[in-house]
Amino acid sequence: MVRTHHDFTWSGVDVHPYKEDGGTHFKSITRQTLYKGEPTLPVELRYFEIAPGGHSTMERHDHLHVVTVIRGKGQVLVGDEIRPIGLHDVVHVPEQTWHQFQAEADDHLGFLCLVAVDRDRPYRPQAEDLEGLSSHVREFVRV
Amino acid sequence: MVRTHHDFTWSGVDVHPYKEDGGTHFKSITRQTLYKGEPTLPVELRYFEIAPGGHSTMERHDHLHVVTVIRGKGQVLVGDEIRPIGLHDVVHVPEQTWHQFQAEADDHLGFLCLVAVDRDRPYRPQAEDLEGLSSHVREFVRV
Repeated sequence: MVRTHHDFTWSGVDVHPYKEDGGTHFKSITRQTLYKGEPTLPVELRYFEIAPGGHSTMERHDHLHVVTVIRGKGQVLVGDEIRPIGLHDVVHVPEQTWHQFQAEADDHLGFLCLVAVDRDRPYRPQAEDLEGLSSHVREFVRV
Repeated sequence: MVRTHHDFTWSGVDVHPYKEDGGTHFKSITRQTLYKGEPTLPVELRYFEIAPGGHSTMERHDHLHVVTVIRGKGQVLVGDEIRPIGLHDVVHVPEQTWHQFQAEADDHLGFLCLVAVDRDRPYRPQAEDLEGLSSHVREFVRV
């Protein structure tokens, strides 16, 4: 009924790698699923934590994200906007919009991320996608 | 894209009364809707803040709540359990389960609450419901 929080871990919740497939398109990030969805509320609430200097995968997909920062600070790319984010800021990532979260070099970035249980797989940028990015985005992203 | 947070208010988000219908079954509580739902993610993310000594309505309904505390502390009733809650604790309220959130006398209780957009109306306890409560619950609740 209550998942008790202690230092960004929760009772009864396992800490997982961000993605099971490994890869070099992300860095220093963990995932905890705080709510895994039920038929009448088929969404997942996950907590992701990016260690200082780390980042999530740059990707896009059909499903939306609603993200709420609960620890530290960093920057986010959504589409072609790059914005600083910090405590309790709420980020809306629309469908098929490039996005990447990056922690500050000297701070964690921890956030709640809301998604539908039924969702498509992310698409990562290919060479032609990277060539099509605005220069300020290309300079920001880590792929 | 980013709703910027400042002192538990967010850019572009209005602060509303907890419930539009008024009433004395709740006390000192506000509501802000941080995400109002879209067809592919038909849920709402609301921030409720209960001032010191205040409380939400005691109620039950078919829809689930997933609640994450982001400010202060208090207590929650879920079913016949009463538990202290504080920063980042996650509370799962199952369907048709009596629940009430109460702030501490000297602290706010602020929490994110996730619900489906399509949901039933809450049911408030009638005299016969109150008579059927365990004594520790009856002593706790404010109706």
